[in-house]
Amino acid sequence: MSKQETEKVRVFALGGVGEIGKNMYGVEVDEDIIIVDAGLMFPDDDMLGVDIVIPDVTYLVENEDRVRGILLTHGHEDHIGGLSYVLKKINVPVYGTKLTLGLVEEKLKEAGIHKQTTLRLIDCNSRIKLGSTPVSFFRTSHSIPDCVGICVETSQGAVVHTGDFKFDQTPVDGKHAEIGKMAAIGQRGVLCLLSDSTNAERPGTTKSESEVGQGITDVFAKTSGRLIVTSFASNVHRLQQVIHAAVASRRKLAVVGKSMVRVITIASKLGYLKMPKDLLIDIDEVNRLKPEQVVILTTGSQGEPMSALTRMARGAHRHITITPDDTIIIAASAIPGNEKSVSAVIDQLHRIGAEVVYGSQAVHASGHGSQEELKLMLNLMKPKYFLPIHGEIRMQHAHRELGLQVGIKKERIYIVEKGEVVEFTNNQARRGGKVPSGHVLIDGLGVGDVGNIVLRDRRLLSKDGILVVVVTLNKKTNTIVSGPNIISRGFVYVRESEELLEKSNELVTAILQKSVTENVSEWSSLKSNIREGLSRFLFEKTKRRPMILPIIMEV
Amino acid sequence: MSKQETEKVRVFALGGVGEIGKNMYGVEVDEDIIIVDAGLMFPDDDMLGVDIVIPDVTYLVENEDRVRGILLTHGHEDHIGGLSYVLKKINVPVYGTKLTLGLVEEKLKEAGIHKQTTLRLIDCNSRIKLGSTPVSFFRTSHSIPDCVGICVETSQGAVVHTGDFKFDQTPVDGKHAEIGKMAAIGQRGVLCLLSDSTNAERPGTTKSESEVGQGITDVFAKTSGRLIVTSFASNVHRLQQVIHAAVASRRKLAVVGKSMVRVITIASKLGYLKMPKDLLIDIDEVNRLKPEQVVILTTGSQGEPMSALTRMARGAHRHITITPDDTIIIAASAIPGNEKSVSAVIDQLHRIGAEVVYGSQAVHASGHGSQEELKLMLNLMKPKYFLPIHGEIRMQHAHRELGLQVGIKKERIYIVEKGEVVEFTNNQARRGGKVPSGHVLIDGLGVGDVGNIVLRDRRLLSKDGILVVVVTLNKKTNTIVSGPNIISRGFVYVRESEELLEKSNELVTAILQKSVTENVSEWSSLKSNIREGLSRFLFEKTKRRPMILPIIMEV
Repeated sequence: MSKQETEKVRVFALGGVGEIGKNMYGVEVDEDIIIVDAGLMFPDDDMLGVDIVIPDVTYLVENEDRVRGILLTHGHEDHIGGLSYVLKKINVPVYGTKLTLGLVEEKLKEAGIHKQTTLRLIDCNSRIKLGSTPVSFFRTSHSIPDCVGICVETSQGAVVHTGDFKFDQTPVDGKHAEIGKMAAIGQRGVLCLLSDSTNAERPGTTKSESEVGQGITDVFAKTSGRLIVTSFASNVHRLQQVIHAAVASRRKLAVVGKSMVRVITIASKLGYLKMPKDLLIDIDEVNRLKPEQVVILTTGSQGEPMSALTRMARGAHRHITITPDDTIIIAASAIPGNEKSVSAVIDQLHRIGAEVVYGSQAVHASGHGSQEELKLMLNLMKPKYFLPIHGEIRMQHAHRELGLQVGIKKERIYIVEKGEVVEFTNNQARRGGKVPSGHVLIDGLGVGDVGNIVLRDRRLLSKDGILVVVVTLNKKTNTIVSGPNIISRGFVYVRESEELLEKSNELVTAILQKSVTENVSEWSSLKSNIREGLSRFLFEKTKRRPMILPIIMEV
Repeated sequence: MSKQETEKVRVFALGGVGEIGKNMYGVEVDEDIIIVDAGLMFPDDDMLGVDIVIPDVTYLVENEDRVRGILLTHGHEDHIGGLSYVLKKINVPVYGTKLTLGLVEEKLKEAGIHKQTTLRLIDCNSRIKLGSTPVSFFRTSHSIPDCVGICVETSQGAVVHTGDFKFDQTPVDGKHAEIGKMAAIGQRGVLCLLSDSTNAERPGTTKSESEVGQGITDVFAKTSGRLIVTSFASNVHRLQQVIHAAVASRRKLAVVGKSMVRVITIASKLGYLKMPKDLLIDIDEVNRLKPEQVVILTTGSQGEPMSALTRMARGAHRHITITPDDTIIIAASAIPGNEKSVSAVIDQLHRIGAEVVYGSQAVHASGHGSQEELKLMLNLMKPKYFLPIHGEIRMQHAHRELGLQVGIKKERIYIVEKGEVVEFTNNQARRGGKVPSGHVLIDGLGVGDVGNIVLRDRRLLSKDGILVVVVTLNKKTNTIVSGPNIISRGFVYVRESEELLEKSNELVTAILQKSVTENVSEWSSLKSNIREGLSRFLFEKTKRRPMILPIIMEV
């Protein structure tokens, strides 16, 4: 093959590498840009007040005419949660399996953009063309049904994106990952594999989802009181197993929490959840039945302060209050960063005296393959080049180690950060520069208007609060007309520190008087005099550094 | 024994139960109050700006004349970190082993109270009297040398406090836990056991500290570049093992970070750390030696933003910058709540391209016994009554399960929260009311001046920032003299939202004008009009709720 013969293939991540969440990847084949997923991320602790984070899609906006579509691997928030924001910026078709599109549709309706968006249904056997680039799919196992991996065909070989996967040998819905198809893809030749690194640090093989079902059934069997189960709403397999356990133990099922109700509604409608017609009861019917006749399925597995379970535990839920006779199953693990809030809910339930089943007690399994499964994927695909994706950088590095173990050459494994491009021509890879990338912060209705300055201020305010110093000056006569008034919030409780604030007032008055006498006519230098003088004084007295906001009113 | 014959024994926790940290327990034998430990806790995420948290000791202040002394089980911060604050409120003698008092002395000097404090040295064989109550000790194994459990003798049997413990069969210093002595105490009769619940959720037996040494030695042996090791500064056993590995691999040792230098200095001086004289080098000598001749021992195992390791990783350390050729050993686990910051440092090190050894890779062992060890302790002591302490409430509950397993009767296990008293007379226990207890927050120099109102304000400020609305009014003429001025911090970045702030200004002006016209003479109702009107407007436009602070200046 001569140098002119192959197309240029470029692969990059707009999110999902060097972080957990907001997965979004790009595969360019000459003029075609194909996007895989458009997820959201939950904010880090230092992103104060931020609701969610989505990828920066500047590159796609600038090249909208070349973006052929967004392919969705599955319906988890970290893969579809950014979609409605992205589609407001670029209007391109979205491809996904039945359940995935079912979940997406709901989101687009909420955002008011479902009419203008083209949704195209695919399944694991679809073969489509995006621009002039053929794309096919293969089924994977994960903690939500209807997941696919993606195979983008190029003349240099396939670019394969695994999506999220594990190899579950006893899947709840009986639908195994298509290992044979993966092997065939590998046989035909894979130029580059992008593979899920989430559990690359975990030795062995991930537990089957079916084992969780057994664990849940066991708890049901030995519980004589009321049962309350919480899990990730999107884990339809697990919800199905809770339903099985409810049926087997002759309990009625009440569903609580917005996302839980939504998923159960959609998944039932689309045939992904099966249950007897008379199983479901309304939440306000629960108290009419005996405790042993009921199971409540609720949101709140991450200890979210406003979730149904947390409110039940606090005694602040309208229908359900947890009692010492209840058994609560927390069929989920804490997402990194949520450890403390999950623990807080478990502790609160213990305080009430309820029975709590959680953690290592066999009621959770990860949706991501561990080291042996990741090596299996690498061996099936036999990629020429390998990009560990979907994970923090240490997970990408751990995945790289696995790649080395199965014989991929060191120089053919690329650890990329957001925006970094790997370019393939004539079956050779090289680093190909960067495309714009980053965090877009969403706070309330604001998309991207919370930037570094706002976050820095919030951090300052959160640590030691604020002192507002207001004074009214007559600029003509250069005299203080009114003030200074000092108001503090989040600094000290005024009643306990009257003396400190009085002294602060004296200090500011002295600074003002001096400035007025010296005819300091620049408001800005007057303000910085106040800020510096007061800041020094307060730090000396309290070792704290509140934000100081001098305001000068002119009459 | 007739009802009049026994003394009244009361046991309570001022901290350490229902939480991780600030351990402080009280044992009252008639008129004698004996305190065990006086620890600190690191603030929860919602205690914004707070540096540390200590127990509320109101009860001890009110009964100072009865407090016979504070017994220290060991020198960890969660057991001694509150001491200098407590001793400023009550001046009572402090008892501890050599290393513990060595660490305490340093703290008291910093606080300027070492001269007025009586420190009394004990060892595991001491027998002392506090008031008229005999107290003896037994040696335990933990992640710092010189740990003791405490045995308070009463006529109803012993009240035993285990301190923090595991049963390490191959302790680094060769000093085993005194199992025989524990068995003898059990034989003589234990009224009540207070035992460490930290790892009550963990099956099996905790790994020996010696295994960690082997893990560290292995990494040293196969590393040809520079080595950087971080660990808890207080884990003297682990530091000793790093020293052994350094000697064995012919490396010089440089120590970085205030707490690491302090512990190594004290532990060496007191004979708890042994090293060849020429082992230590100054940090500024490191760059003069070859990488393979050096190991750097540093603070920062918890990813603390200002710690030496974090600064090295950021390229912000004065002497050391981490390079791709370095190997970093993180010989510690993340304390709950620190998971994300530890991960961030590991990720940053990977970004640089350095080798990082951490986590499951055999370079950490817990200092607390797992389930089998906790059951062993219960079987040795054979207590009549059992109080699981030292842990979150779910850990206390898990420990309770272990108590049931070894045959302690359900009604003889007490799960207590802070302040709850268990009272023993005539060998019978009952709940005995509450003593005052709670969190005392320390922020800078302020002890206890950050209360709920200040924290609530900081939380509000951290989420959506603040808008200060200032207007100068002439009260006589009821006219607006100047303003309204609106200044925002942490809400939106002004340049991006000029329109929003302009509209806010118009709204406030309208509210003011209306109030002035209607002769609203109460500043407070004028302020609440502004607050409510502006809040409603901003929520509608942004779905955010910044704090709104109206200030009216009068001329």
